[in-house]
Amino acid sequence: MSNVTLLPVLKPEAVAPCCPPLTERPLTAEEAGPAAAMFKALGDPVRLRLFSAVASHEGGEACVCDISDVGVSQPTVSHHLKKLKEAGLLTSERRGTWVYYRVEPSVLAAMGKVLSPSA
Amino acid sequence: MSNVTLLPVLKPEAVAPCCPPLTERPLTAEEAGPAAAMFKALGDPVRLRLFSAVASHEGGEACVCDISDVGVSQPTVSHHLKKLKEAGLLTSERRGTWVYYRVEPSVLAAMGKVLSPSA
Repeated sequence: MSNVTLLPVLKPEAVAPCCPPLTERPLTAEEAGPAAAMFKALGDPVRLRLFSAVASHEGGEACVCDISDVGVSQPTVSHHLKKLKEAGLLTSERRGTWVYYRVEPSVLAAMGKVLSPSA
Repeated sequence: MSNVTLLPVLKPEAVAPCCPPLTERPLTAEEAGPAAAMFKALGDPVRLRLFSAVASHEGGEACVCDISDVGVSQPTVSHHLKKLKEAGLLTSERRGTWVYYRVEPSVLAAMGKVLSPSA
């Protein structure tokens, strides 16, 4: 428990940070499944724009009303946000009328680490 | 030549590093297209394993003979390597009998940067 501290911040439905950097060693099939699911969730231009809209919004969270200007219908926005939640990249919370979406910083950091050069 | 050296190593067909960190500001449609294509290329478990096999191989390159133990047929391996090349994540070069695949370090670094927290 010296250098690395794993905090229980992930919601149960979130995908746990899984893997070493891709440059370190070949991923196993068990590691590749969840990691690929996260990359796939970002593999659609509209979803990626929505994700960046949430990630870059003040306070790291946004309601649908804040991020709907990506040129697709409201049901399509909801569909994509659901996919991002299922992949563990976003969490959501209802407050009054609105549902607020938040990026899991630990998941984003873990994905970045997977892509970091080990050298 | 101190910490970071950016060399003009990208082949013309490679996808140029495109975007600011997702946490910095919402991506534009123009930025999201190429970035999503790269994430999509990694959004398949077999492709991700092949990519990590190349990325972690000695010298940062591998021939098909080095990385075919992912439990799929040789034509499937070739298909996935082609997809990774099309997305700009791998380059290839024929030397004698074998085709060697190499990860573009600058592309990997750019993707990692896109996922890095800006805070």
